[in-house]
Amino acid sequence: MITPNMHYADLQNSYLFYNIAQKTKAYLTEHPDRRLYRLGIGDVSLPLCDAVIKALHEAVEDQADPARFHGYMPECGDPALRTRIAAHYRSRGVMLEDEEVFVSSGASDELGDILDLFDCKSSALVIEPAYPAYVDANVMAGRKIIHLPSGKENAFLPEPSEEARVGIIYICSPNNPTGAVFTREKLQKWIDFANENGSVILFDAAYEAFIEDEALPRSIFELQGARTCAIEICSLSKTAGFTGTRFGYTVIPKDLVRKGMNLNEMWVRNRTTKTNGISYIIQKGAAAVFTEEGQRQTAENIRFYKENAKIITRALEEAGLWYCGGKNAPYIWLECPGGMDSWTFFDFLLEEIQVVGTPGEGFGSCGEGYFRFSTFGSRADTLEAAERIKRLLG
Amino acid sequence: MITPNMHYADLQNSYLFYNIAQKTKAYLTEHPDRRLYRLGIGDVSLPLCDAVIKALHEAVEDQADPARFHGYMPECGDPALRTRIAAHYRSRGVMLEDEEVFVSSGASDELGDILDLFDCKSSALVIEPAYPAYVDANVMAGRKIIHLPSGKENAFLPEPSEEARVGIIYICSPNNPTGAVFTREKLQKWIDFANENGSVILFDAAYEAFIEDEALPRSIFELQGARTCAIEICSLSKTAGFTGTRFGYTVIPKDLVRKGMNLNEMWVRNRTTKTNGISYIIQKGAAAVFTEEGQRQTAENIRFYKENAKIITRALEEAGLWYCGGKNAPYIWLECPGGMDSWTFFDFLLEEIQVVGTPGEGFGSCGEGYFRFSTFGSRADTLEAAERIKRLLG
Repeated sequence: MITPNMHYADLQNSYLFYNIAQKTKAYLTEHPDRRLYRLGIGDVSLPLCDAVIKALHEAVEDQADPARFHGYMPECGDPALRTRIAAHYRSRGVMLEDEEVFVSSGASDELGDILDLFDCKSSALVIEPAYPAYVDANVMAGRKIIHLPSGKENAFLPEPSEEARVGIIYICSPNNPTGAVFTREKLQKWIDFANENGSVILFDAAYEAFIEDEALPRSIFELQGARTCAIEICSLSKTAGFTGTRFGYTVIPKDLVRKGMNLNEMWVRNRTTKTNGISYIIQKGAAAVFTEEGQRQTAENIRFYKENAKIITRALEEAGLWYCGGKNAPYIWLECPGGMDSWTFFDFLLEEIQVVGTPGEGFGSCGEGYFRFSTFGSRADTLEAAERIKRLLG
Repeated sequence: MITPNMHYADLQNSYLFYNIAQKTKAYLTEHPDRRLYRLGIGDVSLPLCDAVIKALHEAVEDQADPARFHGYMPECGDPALRTRIAAHYRSRGVMLEDEEVFVSSGASDELGDILDLFDCKSSALVIEPAYPAYVDANVMAGRKIIHLPSGKENAFLPEPSEEARVGIIYICSPNNPTGAVFTREKLQKWIDFANENGSVILFDAAYEAFIEDEALPRSIFELQGARTCAIEICSLSKTAGFTGTRFGYTVIPKDLVRKGMNLNEMWVRNRTTKTNGISYIIQKGAAAVFTEEGQRQTAENIRFYKENAKIITRALEEAGLWYCGGKNAPYIWLECPGGMDSWTFFDFLLEEIQVVGTPGEGFGSCGEGYFRFSTFGSRADTLEAAERIKRLLG
């Protein structure tokens, strides 16, 4: 008799966004005449920019033409694209070899797959509140998880402590859900700590494009010592609206070695065994993001979402609610009013003003009492939601 | 100090197709004036069919339009596409629920990912010769591997035996590399055996579209008892030329339960945690394959490759070489002439007639003395390679 992966039985009940979807569906079934203002799941609303659309059409045409048709792609990514991404880093002062850049089908996929590099007995540290998949993917592998809570007292940017002497350290900056961004000084402490302890930092940089304060690091590799302790996982989902188009990239420095094993070489072996690479069409579309035109057009979209952020934060200020984020990050993290717990506040907003957000409790127990708004909604939804929030809570 | 996944150190030297690439590259560096006739790696040469190209362009246009833009897709696949694939099975007499069909980015990706469902202490049976990634993906997970050799004596279709009482049983039919296809009777024996022992069959059906003999099963779910012991992994790579476009689908019946764990439910949980679904654009292109027009156009391409198969097999017959496959499968498996070992034969063909094939030894030790030709080459390459084979070996 085969033994299934019994760790799946240890998974908590259900998935945050699934629960939200069920609750909103039930609400709409009961109130078919109402419409919702969605500031919940972090899905983008603007279409892909022209440069990407043009490149995608061209790539489709290539696949129609016997002379230009592309079959299997190199498993770690089209070499020209790896070069282009390395050059993109270089333009911001981070020196990488092309072979240190791997393409992926997105950060969430890569965050799941990359755990294959580590022994299941290595424990994982999750700074909470956090993206729930960090915990679930490690529960599935049977790893011990250390939850490091953060809060207002440390601006949701905790420092390393004795209990953080683990194998894998997750750092998400700009943070989902709090919008907090590690300063160079605070991030340096984690790098030094990881190097001292032989840990590996999984640096989730999915929201780096939203950093506008130039003093804040957009890549962990801007800092000393990161090459010997960090893997950086990036995505075009929020940078360029690729949530449904799927593309990401990962940096694994060649200097990252643990117990004689070179993690860059291990990942090459993993990819060549377990995948046949990322779609040619999607890689062509992604490459357009790293052109001058693509950078300009995607920056316009990011400015649009930042304007949404201003609309929401102004409403929260008028309503007198405590919040953080929304400036160097696409998420706004607020304190539920009147000591409400976060699922009660979710129901309250849904019932009273048809605004959908994300309960902080879904990101870990220290997220209880907080709530996340996403700035990725349409302008009309965002404006109407802001008005309703002011009316209800102001 | 973190412990990396030390099982990577147990991986054999290097990957079959990588070695071939290195050898051909070295040959071309030494002989820059020569051109090669590639019947090696199983990559397609015909472009995507018109129905798929049209659907891909439309999907790209959707991603340019705020009103039709698609963000995050459901993790297990677009429901309409899952329905369409289930209907495709139904049209061939296999009844599936839509929720038993999962979309993937291809069979090789899925064969790697799906192992996450099983405990690392469950052993795996690999019928050899076999696609090398079956072994490597399990070595990476630290699983014990039982190699079941096959040969001419059983037409490369071995029966279950005492040593096959394992957790995971790989069956690839039509087979890569031998082109052998399990008959209903022979496949039924494996199904009964798996049900008796509580094993799970991973049925790699990547080449099912090449079966022309209607008595042969194209899906394991055509047979009694498969719903309680099998997972079927399919791909559009060879069916519709998606090697570089990437799309596959997987069937996990809701009746597949081991030690109280429902594998369909586990896979839903896996996908919702570890991925954000397959690209909207690619799913739209894939959906076009399952239309009447798409089926007709992809069947034309398959006929083209089958004509290639006839050209190669006629040359082998004229040269008096033993071979199998090429009729219900896109691969031809031949015995190296004169007792040559397979890498020597590889070098011999490369040096003498610039034809590139795949040494049988790369598919397991019992593949030694054999050689694989792929029928996916261009017509011109195939014709010239056939002529050269006849001239050299005839």
